[in-house]
Amino acid sequence: MNNAAEYKIEPISLINDDLLLQETIFHNANGYIGVRSCFEEGYKAGYNSIRGTYINGFYDIARMKQPEKLYGLIEEKQTIINVVDTQAIQLKLGDETFSMFEGTVLESSRWLDMENGYTARRVLWRSPAGKEVEIEIRRMTSFTRLSLFTIDYRVKSVNYEGEITFLSSHIADVANYFNPNDPRVASETFRHLNPGRAGIVEGASYILTNTSNSGLAVCTGVKNILYGECETEHKIDEYHAVCSLRRKVKLNETVRLIKYTVVKDSIRCRDCRSEAIREMKKSVSVTMEKLYEEQSSYLKTYWKKSLLEIKGDHDLNLAVRYNLYQLVQSVGKDKHGTIAAKGLSGEGYEGHYFWDTEMYIQPFFTLTNPEIAKNLLEYRYHTLNEARENARILGHKQGALYPWRTIMGKECSGYFPSGSAQYHINGDIAHAVAAYYLVTKDFDFIIDKGFEIVLETARLWMDTGHFCNGLFHIYEVTGPDEYTCMVNNNYYTNACAQHNLRWTVKFYRMMEETRKNSPDCAEKIVALYHKTQLTTCEIEAFEEAEKKMYLPYDKNLKINPQDDSFLNKKIWDIQNTPADKFPLLLHYHPLYLYRHQVCKQADTVLAHFVFEDVQDMETIRNSFLYYEKITTHDSSLSTCIFSIVASRLGMEEKAYAYFGDSAKLDLFNTHHNTKDGIHTANMGGTYMAIVYGFAGLRIREEGLHFAPTLPKQWEGYRFRISYAGCEIQICVLEEHSQFVLLSGEPLMVHVYDKEHTLTDQITVPRKTNEPDRIQIVHH
Amino acid sequence: MNNAAEYKIEPISLINDDLLLQETIFHNANGYIGVRSCFEEGYKAGYNSIRGTYINGFYDIARMKQPEKLYGLIEEKQTIINVVDTQAIQLKLGDETFSMFEGTVLESSRWLDMENGYTARRVLWRSPAGKEVEIEIRRMTSFTRLSLFTIDYRVKSVNYEGEITFLSSHIADVANYFNPNDPRVASETFRHLNPGRAGIVEGASYILTNTSNSGLAVCTGVKNILYGECETEHKIDEYHAVCSLRRKVKLNETVRLIKYTVVKDSIRCRDCRSEAIREMKKSVSVTMEKLYEEQSSYLKTYWKKSLLEIKGDHDLNLAVRYNLYQLVQSVGKDKHGTIAAKGLSGEGYEGHYFWDTEMYIQPFFTLTNPEIAKNLLEYRYHTLNEARENARILGHKQGALYPWRTIMGKECSGYFPSGSAQYHINGDIAHAVAAYYLVTKDFDFIIDKGFEIVLETARLWMDTGHFCNGLFHIYEVTGPDEYTCMVNNNYYTNACAQHNLRWTVKFYRMMEETRKNSPDCAEKIVALYHKTQLTTCEIEAFEEAEKKMYLPYDKNLKINPQDDSFLNKKIWDIQNTPADKFPLLLHYHPLYLYRHQVCKQADTVLAHFVFEDVQDMETIRNSFLYYEKITTHDSSLSTCIFSIVASRLGMEEKAYAYFGDSAKLDLFNTHHNTKDGIHTANMGGTYMAIVYGFAGLRIREEGLHFAPTLPKQWEGYRFRISYAGCEIQICVLEEHSQFVLLSGEPLMVHVYDKEHTLTDQITVPRKTNEPDRIQIVHH
Repeated sequence: MNNAAEYKIEPISLINDDLLLQETIFHNANGYIGVRSCFEEGYKAGYNSIRGTYINGFYDIARMKQPEKLYGLIEEKQTIINVVDTQAIQLKLGDETFSMFEGTVLESSRWLDMENGYTARRVLWRSPAGKEVEIEIRRMTSFTRLSLFTIDYRVKSVNYEGEITFLSSHIADVANYFNPNDPRVASETFRHLNPGRAGIVEGASYILTNTSNSGLAVCTGVKNILYGECETEHKIDEYHAVCSLRRKVKLNETVRLIKYTVVKDSIRCRDCRSEAIREMKKSVSVTMEKLYEEQSSYLKTYWKKSLLEIKGDHDLNLAVRYNLYQLVQSVGKDKHGTIAAKGLSGEGYEGHYFWDTEMYIQPFFTLTNPEIAKNLLEYRYHTLNEARENARILGHKQGALYPWRTIMGKECSGYFPSGSAQYHINGDIAHAVAAYYLVTKDFDFIIDKGFEIVLETARLWMDTGHFCNGLFHIYEVTGPDEYTCMVNNNYYTNACAQHNLRWTVKFYRMMEETRKNSPDCAEKIVALYHKTQLTTCEIEAFEEAEKKMYLPYDKNLKINPQDDSFLNKKIWDIQNTPADKFPLLLHYHPLYLYRHQVCKQADTVLAHFVFEDVQDMETIRNSFLYYEKITTHDSSLSTCIFSIVASRLGMEEKAYAYFGDSAKLDLFNTHHNTKDGIHTANMGGTYMAIVYGFAGLRIREEGLHFAPTLPKQWEGYRFRISYAGCEIQICVLEEHSQFVLLSGEPLMVHVYDKEHTLTDQITVPRKTNEPDRIQIVHH
Repeated sequence: MNNAAEYKIEPISLINDDLLLQETIFHNANGYIGVRSCFEEGYKAGYNSIRGTYINGFYDIARMKQPEKLYGLIEEKQTIINVVDTQAIQLKLGDETFSMFEGTVLESSRWLDMENGYTARRVLWRSPAGKEVEIEIRRMTSFTRLSLFTIDYRVKSVNYEGEITFLSSHIADVANYFNPNDPRVASETFRHLNPGRAGIVEGASYILTNTSNSGLAVCTGVKNILYGECETEHKIDEYHAVCSLRRKVKLNETVRLIKYTVVKDSIRCRDCRSEAIREMKKSVSVTMEKLYEEQSSYLKTYWKKSLLEIKGDHDLNLAVRYNLYQLVQSVGKDKHGTIAAKGLSGEGYEGHYFWDTEMYIQPFFTLTNPEIAKNLLEYRYHTLNEARENARILGHKQGALYPWRTIMGKECSGYFPSGSAQYHINGDIAHAVAAYYLVTKDFDFIIDKGFEIVLETARLWMDTGHFCNGLFHIYEVTGPDEYTCMVNNNYYTNACAQHNLRWTVKFYRMMEETRKNSPDCAEKIVALYHKTQLTTCEIEAFEEAEKKMYLPYDKNLKINPQDDSFLNKKIWDIQNTPADKFPLLLHYHPLYLYRHQVCKQADTVLAHFVFEDVQDMETIRNSFLYYEKITTHDSSLSTCIFSIVASRLGMEEKAYAYFGDSAKLDLFNTHHNTKDGIHTANMGGTYMAIVYGFAGLRIREEGLHFAPTLPKQWEGYRFRISYAGCEIQICVLEEHSQFVLLSGEPLMVHVYDKEHTLTDQITVPRKTNEPDRIQIVHH
């Protein structure tokens, strides 16, 4: 099978919009730092560039004035900040300066090497005066040394002999990107960083800056090493350092500059300047080749664990590979940062973490890299107190309400009807805890941290909802679909809450068992009961609410209404809405949208994927067909879910089409906003669309279930997952599916609802063209 | 009967909060300008003062950044501005400066003379050095010369002989009041006025300033005349003028300074500086006594037309008189300004006009001063185009949507769920048009302007609502009660829309009649049809929607639910909410409030007053009792309505209690925020509570209906109204009610549903202790 190790464009488009897009597409990140791929030498005058370097979880606080003050509205937000520009390198050949906008670009290409973990640009350039050079620049953010970013700049002379100069800058008076006309990025600029201390230490420049409002500091160090004999000169002030390096070049000779950047922040370090100096020493003490080796080795492991390949469709296989590469680039490696909506690739959504993490991205890590998945949950545990405070602001006397968008745990939603009102985030996080447990069987984590999360979120549902006509109702919340806000009994939310309550009770019962049977754990469990002031009455109340949870159902349409009043609204005529009116949110007032049956994204359909067991397939099918007609997929979180549910309903063509939309979103810029950053949730969704969708994976308490389908456009696909200490590889081909136990104890797997014991490997004939569980008429 | 011509406090409290309150209570206004009653000499250091002078309809534009950008959200607002300080006068006796905070205040009082239209302060003061003077200062904003404000400052020497000096200032670098912690006033300060031209002309200072963003200008002129021989000196720069006036005073002699302020703005004048100079000349050409006479004469007419007296309750009679005085002080006298939530008495709600005008204040003017009522409607017609534009922003392809809050017609709501979403304002304005017609029979106005208003508002309902199960539903709107937002089928809103549609059709039919029978009008009417592109199809559609309007009704409770989901919500426990948690909006997050059955103000109860005929009294009674338990009256628009409906239901004690709450709100500062300005809507509500409540007035198409009740605490009450060209005086006493036709043609009136011909006067025995139409059990 093709492993699609590389994504390449050739030649490089120099149109401004394309360059902005490439900045994202080829950005380098490692979960700690992210650097957008701007040209070292810059673009031409008048061109836009989002020239950013970001740190996961590092933020400043910005004021967010509310136009009308209401109690509890958020007045300040955490925002990711551009911390430094260490990309800048000017190349001079004698008195001529390299620029792709001057002279002649004879050849050019850019690529991302996903096996070796770097991006590169190659340019064969003739200067206005006729000097020809071949330039190749490799950039890397190291997965093994998270604070390290390198630029490996090689210039080979074709016809030039003479002086070559590099002016390599280190600039700390950087600002965030802003656009007053786009609601999806910041609309104002602030000065976030103030000068601290700057100086040269052992040939490297170090600049320490302090954030304006969040009380944080960051130190960046830059060292330039030019191979061969050269003259070096440093200039530095509080915000800028420039290193000038000069030497001679001969015909056919290659000159190589390596620029090392180290980044250390005060969240993770006590003294970030000393740490930066130490880190720089360590980094330059090994060869660049060693750094590349480390990177390849890290990725070798990653790709092994995360294996996912499609045979028979090069583009899709490449897109999937690209998406999984971006996930490992984006995901935080410590509890101070998880995975932002745009990863570390841009400033869209201001670096905030949403429910995306738990519902779209965590499933991938849980199944492939459970230690990373655990870290994501650690972060939520780490910010549980902020969630408790948030619940108090919203009027709740008990429980915790996780923020809709945040960096370090405080709610940062400016517009609460489609922000804080999305209470389902509580259920989403609780679901991620349960899913993590189901896959890893890591009950220690549940006792240590997981139970407290699910308990506090469960408590919030009890304080939010109430019994009405004998059933548990939840009012004035917003579901995932933001085209309808503050509704009663949002189906997804109620199903989410039900699941949250059910698992709180389940975990409690399991702890009770453990307490009786395992004296070592008993003390810990009792302490937890005390700490959380848990009573059996409370557990009974959870059970009662869970059993009596109201899940709206419409008898006429035989579907689950999105909420109590959704089906009474006017149906939006998507067919006759002009193409330039999408996404609708940019062209219609919220009140107008709210008054219609129109969905930005999967909402009830998502519920049917995640909480499949509480509904019969007939209702799921009817609902899918109903919502499909009124969903615009203006959100990037939508098509992957439609793909999964279509797969499960046996609608293979739809599943395939929606999958393609999801997989290609960023690499093919189908939403026209990848310049602001990648869509990490969708990338996780692409993964789910294959594993949960095509392969029909369900992770149930009694074990794994598969129901593999194969898009007729493909020859096959394979992937590898971790489950309860085992490693399993699944290969789906036209005739059969193969399940191989790579490591671990034998286990039971269900394929097409039939139980198999997987000791070594099994081969199950593929059921073709048959819907899952029920017969589906194709539409 | 006592006519309560004066409100007096004696001595003057010098506590800061009391002074702030007095600034409002004793403010002078005439519908064009308003001046808060601050001490001319100021307070002591560290004291707060809202030292404002305002012009009705004069505004600047302030930025209103939205924390998250969504399509159509309002990003700039019009805001009333403090235009000048011409109150400042320092009095010096030799080298001692008069201040109530120094020396000894031997006697002091302040009063408002409502018969003669001025406020006054009298102070008998002994300076630290022992000089004794009696000071009396009268302030007046002239009702006959709208741009004129005078301060008549008399100092009588008791034991002092020597030099007396006045330093009289004219200051144009003034700012608005702000308080970042109170949502009901501005939370930030801006510089709204920039210097234009300043100079002395014929002994008067003129300062012209320009607004920062709205492109408006205002010129203020100040002239000081000190009687007797004196030395005068002027200083002036671009923002400030000071006039120093000095003379000798003998024992027992009275020295009198008159300070004239004229205000002219560029909305009403082409050249406001020249107009100010001209106006000043005219003002000083007559004696001050003449100006006082004009004022008294104006008010004599006003009080005659607006007669309303209560016998047997001094406080309430005074409070009612005070409220009616404030209404004539507040109401705009031209189409450029109507009546702001706070009149011209302060900056609360930023000088915005709300539905208050049409639903709470206009009824009073319609019945007593129809020419003023007409002017209020003229303003709405004048801003119809802005309402059309607003409808487009909200997504509507047809019709007009009046702004929830505005000065010159553009929507200024920062938080749309309880702002722009209050679509009922459309029906409120249409209702005011119909009510104006019903009282005045002024059909010419309907043809000229009124019909276009009701048609365009009716069209909006057609575009907002839709048929659902055969009935016309209206979704995602907010009713008057802001503790529940963006609901479906708000009863008040639907009833409002129904009335709007009904009257559009009614007026159309009347025009059709007129067109056939009166050839003079036919052309005008046909032109109107063309202009508005009205079709008979459209009229039929209005009729259909009107007839099929869905008005929610709950069979179990036998009440009208406030909206589709209201009754399913949790009931807020008002009884057990701590007193310091009111008003709830200052202590609970909107989402939390929205999730409960709790009302800020009359909503369905208001509908039952205004649209009484669409519901039976049993439902009205049940609803009243239901909503009464869950209404906090956190809004000042609430108790007057509860009083009216209680009256109509025969709940006399409740009617009386609610009435008292309403009548005394400002004079007794019961909402603790009168310092920010009076509550004009409530003042109109007080009037309605007597006339529509106690006297049981209904204005029906076939004529006037009365059903007088008399609170047992009173001996009687009387009032005068204009109706269809007649003037009628109604006097309600314990034994009987008397109806006197003061002028006009004989007419039919209904009393307790019995028809009477009123030729001269009739006396009808009072029905006592009997509920209106149905028997009520007192609660």
